[in-house]
Amino acid sequence: MRHIFIVGIGTGNPEHLTVQAINALNKVDVIFIPSKGAAKAELADVRKDICQRYVTNKAVRFVDYAVPVRQTAERSYVQSVDDWHAQISSTYEQLFEDHMTEGRSAAFLVWGDPSLYDSTIRIVERVKARDRVDLDYSVIPGITSIQALTASHRIPLNLVGKPVQVTTGRRLSESFPAMVETAVVMLDGELAFKRIDDPEAYIYWGAYLGTEDEITIAGRLADVSDRIVATRAAARAKHGWIMDIYLLRKGSDFDDQA
Amino acid sequence: MRHIFIVGIGTGNPEHLTVQAINALNKVDVIFIPSKGAAKAELADVRKDICQRYVTNKAVRFVDYAVPVRQTAERSYVQSVDDWHAQISSTYEQLFEDHMTEGRSAAFLVWGDPSLYDSTIRIVERVKARDRVDLDYSVIPGITSIQALTASHRIPLNLVGKPVQVTTGRRLSESFPAMVETAVVMLDGELAFKRIDDPEAYIYWGAYLGTEDEITIAGRLADVSDRIVATRAAARAKHGWIMDIYLLRKGSDFDDQA
Ligand SMILES: C[S@@+](CC[C@H](N)C(=O)[O-])C[C@H]1O[C@@H](n2cnc3c(N)ncnc32)[C@H](O)[C@@H]1O
Ligand SMILES: C[S@@+](CC[C@H](N)C(=O)[O-])C[C@H]1O[C@@H](n2cnc3c(N)ncnc32)[C@H](O)[C@@H]1O
Repeated sequence: MRHIFIVGIGTGNPEHLTVQAINALNKVDVIFIPSKGAAKAELADVRKDICQRYVTNKAVRFVDYAVPVRQTAERSYVQSVDDWHAQISSTYEQLFEDHMTEGRSAAFLVWGDPSLYDSTIRIVERVKARDRVDLDYSVIPGITSIQALTASHRIPLNLVGKPVQVTTGRRLSESFPAMVETAVVMLDGELAFKRIDDPEAYIYWGAYLGTEDEITIAGRLADVSDRIVATRAAARAKHGWIMDIYLLRKGSDFDDQA
Repeated sequence: MRHIFIVGIGTGNPEHLTVQAINALNKVDVIFIPSKGAAKAELADVRKDICQRYVTNKAVRFVDYAVPVRQTAERSYVQSVDDWHAQISSTYEQLFEDHMTEGRSAAFLVWGDPSLYDSTIRIVERVKARDRVDLDYSVIPGITSIQALTASHRIPLNLVGKPVQVTTGRRLSESFPAMVETAVVMLDGELAFKRIDDPEAYIYWGAYLGTEDEITIAGRLADVSDRIVATRAAARAKHGWIMDIYLLRKGSDFDDQA
């Protein structure tokens, strides 16, 4: 049987790597590296840096592969993602057949933690379900961009004893501020915070967290919203891409003296 | 100025430690170790194990301290927590005065990630706000029990593009299953999942995650609920304490073919 390690690598700082991840990367036969085109060159650089610093076992081979591009024409969002996952599954299956014989192991390096808004687990499951290559897999947790955000701002994720909603820009309005005191927003291309009109809301925003380009802004949403929009646009123009995340909060610890 | 590192150490597996955490622990003058009494001896053991394995700098001193016990008599929950934090702040202030001179650094080892249902950040902020000792601090992220849970079960945290609620046993019914497809429940002494009566709900439960005593159970809630209750009771009786967490899910990826 082939064994695949789905390894969380943290969110930009190579020092986010855990001992468990480093040990796994040094015991596999192959590490698969996605080559995603120029736009995400910085992400590829972090992966390369991690391999250079921490993969000390010279027997480990590196195999580059091209990640299929998601097709959106004439498809619903869901259909487009589903098709895309099917395509990546075929790519993975081919990688396993071409670069691993029975009993061999390989690793994928996953940004952040493999469980959070990432589909590597789903896709490896699909390959396993197709059952053309005999395989098993393990997941190794990694530091998420949520943790990177709260660490950089030095804030608790939750108010004492209170819940937190982790959501996307598209779904933000369903939960915050009406349903929950804290929301973390990821994958937000539409700047959903701009639509929140609440004088008591605070925002803690971060881009390129963990990297040397990290930017953070925090304050009352009404006060800093414009600055975030402008900073974000400038950074995006400069880098050609952006990865950002934010936490919205309303209220404070112990404000419901129950 | 004194510098405090609030270091996330992961949730039981010493190999959850990140390179960033290891580097921080090796550059401080002092590491403060809580001695919490017999009930949590296993947690103390993990901390000791981590220090032995990863703190190679012999100049680092270890200082034990007693964590004040939370008083609940004649107080509301909120008052009780607030009083407790005030007491721990005094303990910390004393530690900083007694064991660190100006310009020195120290670390606290925090279970999981310091942002998630943990008050070390709040308490160090309190000490800073009292302004009797001059200090600054940094937070170093750690693997959370949420990541440990999803890694052991090899599941994504979220459905594709969908939100996740992180909550406590007491607050679970406010969000799942009516408001959200995925809820992660922590700090649940009352087994709140027993009150959920939904034939479509799945549960992924884990106790002592990351340690050699790790137990996991997954399945349709209606099918495995009793088994979790019995397993939990037996494990708790055997160890004298339990730390458990679970994820509840309803629906599946792409089930709203929009
Ligand atoms: C496809 S998801 C992957 C998340 C990743 N698995 C994790 O654990 O953080 C990508 C989203 O994560 C967030 N993100 C990831 N890395 C980030 C970083 N270094 N700085 C800011 N946001 C980041 C952004 O919201 C981005 O849209
Ligand atoms: C006070 S909170 C601290 C959480 C921690 N900061 C983290 O990042 O996971 C304690 C709760 O975390 C969860 N927990 C922590 N470690 C765990 C483990 N090893 N296995 C299962 N649950 C754990 C349980 O729900 C427990 O009630």
